[in-house]
Amino acid sequence: MSYKAPLKDINWALKHVVGLDRVNSFPHFAEATDDLVDAVLEEAAKFAEGVLAPINHSGDQQGCSWKDHEVSTPDGWVEAYQQFQEAGWMQLSASAEYGGQGLPYLIGSCVNELWKSANMAFSLCPLLSHGAIEAVTAHGSDALKAKYLSKMIDGAWTGTMNLTEPQAGTDLAALKSKAIPEGEHYRVSGQKIFITYGEHGMAENIMHLVLARLPDAPAGVRGISLFLVPKFMVNDDGSLGNRNDVRCVSIEEKLGIHGSPTCVMSFGDEGGAIGYLVGEENQGLACMFTMMNAARHAVGMEGYSLSERAYQHALAFANDRVQGKAMLSGSEGRSTIVDHPDVRRMLMDMKSRTEAMRMLAYEAAASYDIAEASEDDTQRAFHKQRGELLTPLVKGWCTETAQKITYLGMQIHGGMGFIEETGAAQYYRDARITTIYEGTTGIQANDLIGRKMARDGGEGIQLLVTEIDATAQLLSDSDDERLQLMGAQLATANEQVGEVAQWVINNDQPQQASGAAVPLMMATGTLVGGWLQGRSALAAVAEISSGSSDSAFLEAKIGLAQYYAGTALPEVASYGAAAIQGGELVDVLSVDQLSA
Amino acid sequence: MSYKAPLKDINWALKHVVGLDRVNSFPHFAEATDDLVDAVLEEAAKFAEGVLAPINHSGDQQGCSWKDHEVSTPDGWVEAYQQFQEAGWMQLSASAEYGGQGLPYLIGSCVNELWKSANMAFSLCPLLSHGAIEAVTAHGSDALKAKYLSKMIDGAWTGTMNLTEPQAGTDLAALKSKAIPEGEHYRVSGQKIFITYGEHGMAENIMHLVLARLPDAPAGVRGISLFLVPKFMVNDDGSLGNRNDVRCVSIEEKLGIHGSPTCVMSFGDEGGAIGYLVGEENQGLACMFTMMNAARHAVGMEGYSLSERAYQHALAFANDRVQGKAMLSGSEGRSTIVDHPDVRRMLMDMKSRTEAMRMLAYEAAASYDIAEASEDDTQRAFHKQRGELLTPLVKGWCTETAQKITYLGMQIHGGMGFIEETGAAQYYRDARITTIYEGTTGIQANDLIGRKMARDGGEGIQLLVTEIDATAQLLSDSDDERLQLMGAQLATANEQVGEVAQWVINNDQPQQASGAAVPLMMATGTLVGGWLQGRSALAAVAEISSGSSDSAFLEAKIGLAQYYAGTALPEVASYGAAAIQGGELVDVLSVDQLSA
Repeated sequence: MSYKAPLKDINWALKHVVGLDRVNSFPHFAEATDDLVDAVLEEAAKFAEGVLAPINHSGDQQGCSWKDHEVSTPDGWVEAYQQFQEAGWMQLSASAEYGGQGLPYLIGSCVNELWKSANMAFSLCPLLSHGAIEAVTAHGSDALKAKYLSKMIDGAWTGTMNLTEPQAGTDLAALKSKAIPEGEHYRVSGQKIFITYGEHGMAENIMHLVLARLPDAPAGVRGISLFLVPKFMVNDDGSLGNRNDVRCVSIEEKLGIHGSPTCVMSFGDEGGAIGYLVGEENQGLACMFTMMNAARHAVGMEGYSLSERAYQHALAFANDRVQGKAMLSGSEGRSTIVDHPDVRRMLMDMKSRTEAMRMLAYEAAASYDIAEASEDDTQRAFHKQRGELLTPLVKGWCTETAQKITYLGMQIHGGMGFIEETGAAQYYRDARITTIYEGTTGIQANDLIGRKMARDGGEGIQLLVTEIDATAQLLSDSDDERLQLMGAQLATANEQVGEVAQWVINNDQPQQASGAAVPLMMATGTLVGGWLQGRSALAAVAEISSGSSDSAFLEAKIGLAQYYAGTALPEVASYGAAAIQGGELVDVLSVDQLSA
Repeated sequence: MSYKAPLKDINWALKHVVGLDRVNSFPHFAEATDDLVDAVLEEAAKFAEGVLAPINHSGDQQGCSWKDHEVSTPDGWVEAYQQFQEAGWMQLSASAEYGGQGLPYLIGSCVNELWKSANMAFSLCPLLSHGAIEAVTAHGSDALKAKYLSKMIDGAWTGTMNLTEPQAGTDLAALKSKAIPEGEHYRVSGQKIFITYGEHGMAENIMHLVLARLPDAPAGVRGISLFLVPKFMVNDDGSLGNRNDVRCVSIEEKLGIHGSPTCVMSFGDEGGAIGYLVGEENQGLACMFTMMNAARHAVGMEGYSLSERAYQHALAFANDRVQGKAMLSGSEGRSTIVDHPDVRRMLMDMKSRTEAMRMLAYEAAASYDIAEASEDDTQRAFHKQRGELLTPLVKGWCTETAQKITYLGMQIHGGMGFIEETGAAQYYRDARITTIYEGTTGIQANDLIGRKMARDGGEGIQLLVTEIDATAQLLSDSDDERLQLMGAQLATANEQVGEVAQWVINNDQPQQASGAAVPLMMATGTLVGGWLQGRSALAAVAEISSGSSDSAFLEAKIGLAQYYAGTALPEVASYGAAAIQGGELVDVLSVDQLSA
């Protein structure tokens, strides 16, 4: 199935719902004009459709292989990466000081959707490089930046993040890798697992960012430092030297993202890999936190990017497959299955939720950008808080929702969906990792209720609830009966989330709040999706009123918002009930009783 | 991960909630005494744990292979089947007249859970054989039965169901395979796809049951006939003759059930496979309907059997994996993850829903048995109607719920869940087929609202709602506050389902009812699960009152019922709203607008 970049939908969300003008009106982002953004998106669409999408399914079926510490990526990967690098796509939202274009993260998000939809396994390589670039940009010394950053932003060198160890997954306090000072550098040793693109032949060098402990470091997370460990040493003139003491000792056989090597990395088997400190000693976790919001946002986007691809695949099948006589078909005789009500239901469910997720990701990205670009302290503080509040929703809710959407994509294919040749199963398998890595759904939800809801005494969530109420009021005040109904549905859901959030924030039994976290996160994400769908409907009505000739498209946006409000928003109540009642029952069974 | 047959939970559901005595009190099933059932279950547990479970994961990783029309199953499959056959497990609920034991379907269900949990891919071979046995038993001529049935019930020969063709999946009216009369038999030709165990070397012969059209057959489903086509011809003395004109031309590469070959079968490449009519000419669909309830029930059971296995796997991991300090842990220092509230939440969710599904499957099986065994016309009619009403819930709701449960099983494993070696992903992949084959979820839901709810004017669902109300009243009347709350929760959900069912039944726009079908099916299944959990809680309280010493187990049953009522029953309202509102919006977007 070929992939078509949904530029019209992207433009709608970007310019009419979230508002590109909220970002490019700041001098800091003045270069990101509407015209430039259009040009960038069109080029990115060509690249995604023409280069990345065609090798997605073949890459999944072929997978990666390991031999003698070298990793082979699927056919076409090396060439695609070369084109990706030469086209300068790594530079898009990187710092202009080291060769980046410095475009808003909002635009980077629009472009990244296309890579993720076209070929998620491939897109993980630039994703990890981007994280490494951010870490070095924010925390590296000037000398480190001068020597490494330009080549990373250029894309000539890729990057990795080395956090997890066998005994230390979510619990980074347990990590054991060591770094011993030696002159200007350190000798790093230890084993890291789940290292995405830890080894490959697509770029001439790889910059490993590695968490490790100094000999005298305090126990726990306050004793972790961050190091840059190059695969090949870099000479002072920028040429490459010897191979460093780091190697890939095996790759994992996984459920999905087969085109992306997941490596077990061994550092220091021959005395210690040479590494350079990034940031201060024992401040590695703070460096990680810098990247965390962006990385979680990026993984959340994987959720809706795969959903978009799954939707396109399923719609094409439904428009092609003939079975039975369908109730929604105007003609006699056999019909394509798109006209069976249950298939139509699934497609509308997929599309309305996918677009809600996209708008949420943009809304969060816009807040990150405004928090960076605004010169108004209050505005910066507001958007920093808002961006941080929305981040666990982007990661947690979008990836959980993507499980359902990619599931429905397979379901529409019937028996063919279960056959790997069809391709629908790949999106389902690829999506499965997104609720796990970069912090599981449970971690996102605990971040939401702890750092993002309770720490500010509920201020951030209350501001959001107030803003959603205002949108609900606008909908209720509309002349359009469809929007009036949406207004009532949104107001109800908003009230429910507000109540559950207060229950969680005020709960003096932390295990109850923690037991309620995931359902509350799902309720909040679903609500925010409805808020953005409501804003989309308001924008569409305004466009129609102002005489737009594209009424089929605009009416479709209203229809999707109606569908979302009617079928997704009611879930807020059930998530809310499950949060409170489940939280209260979190220890109703003892561990022994679980296996009684 | 080793598998342990959950005999205590099975016995609880069988003897204390659903009631074995409701079935073995009929003379027809008098042999199925409690003692016999205990003995059968213990033997089955040994076989499932000792023979089938150990080759489940290796069979998945190895898969099947095809060469020159022959299919190789994974290592150990042939030997396991031989033991299965020699132990007489095919005979359990087959007709005593041809060598079966004639035990109730309810007992067969208990035993079949163990095969499915231990090794779903293996279990599909006896599942399909069982379907073929049922078809021949119900519709075959005496001569056909005399010649073939004993060997099938003995397990020496396996069976297959050949329905689907590339252009005819759900839409059997479109099938094209032909059967031309030739003396006492027919010559069958055509291509069939998705044929489970269509070819293998585990048994000396395979009986293919094939739907095909006679030359003068009417168009559509009224022109389909059923034929028995042996792989090897059978001589009059029972010895095997030549190979028949049927072969496996390829096998599919699938997302899951890798140990089970899914075959493309070609009939009649050399002039026509010899086949024998089963039932009357052009009555093939009626023969299919005979088997449909049982086959759908069996697939529904796959849903909770995989859920049970996934639960055991996840619980073992959660009791072993140490990460962080958990809120539910009594001690300081690092804890096993079972004591993190969100992990506990997932485990209770898995267990409470898995047990609800098991009880539902038994309840339906009991109705099938009573409808067969009772000599009271009213009782027979009631249980026929009830069994038919529950069947699409067993299939539709249990398999959809299994997606969530096997998903949570992976989630509890964190990053390890995505690695195939761990084994958690296999249950997730295997479960994915269950909402597709034997009629997709959409088909089940349309069966529910059409044949099972509307055709009798709502009588069947109304009788169920009334019965659930009585249980809610018993709960509310309890002295136990926990049960009182459950009573209120159950009554609310029951009212909601009653209202939505009436909306569907009375809706004069069939496309709206059809668009509402899946959410209504999910609402009804969730409700019925709550009804049975309520009955379980009542039974547990009664046991405790009568002085049982097993209070930890009985209190756990009450806790699971509480948890289900508090976290699953609230979903009834959101499914109900999605049914009505989504039904009304089923055509809010045109086909063009779906891709606008």
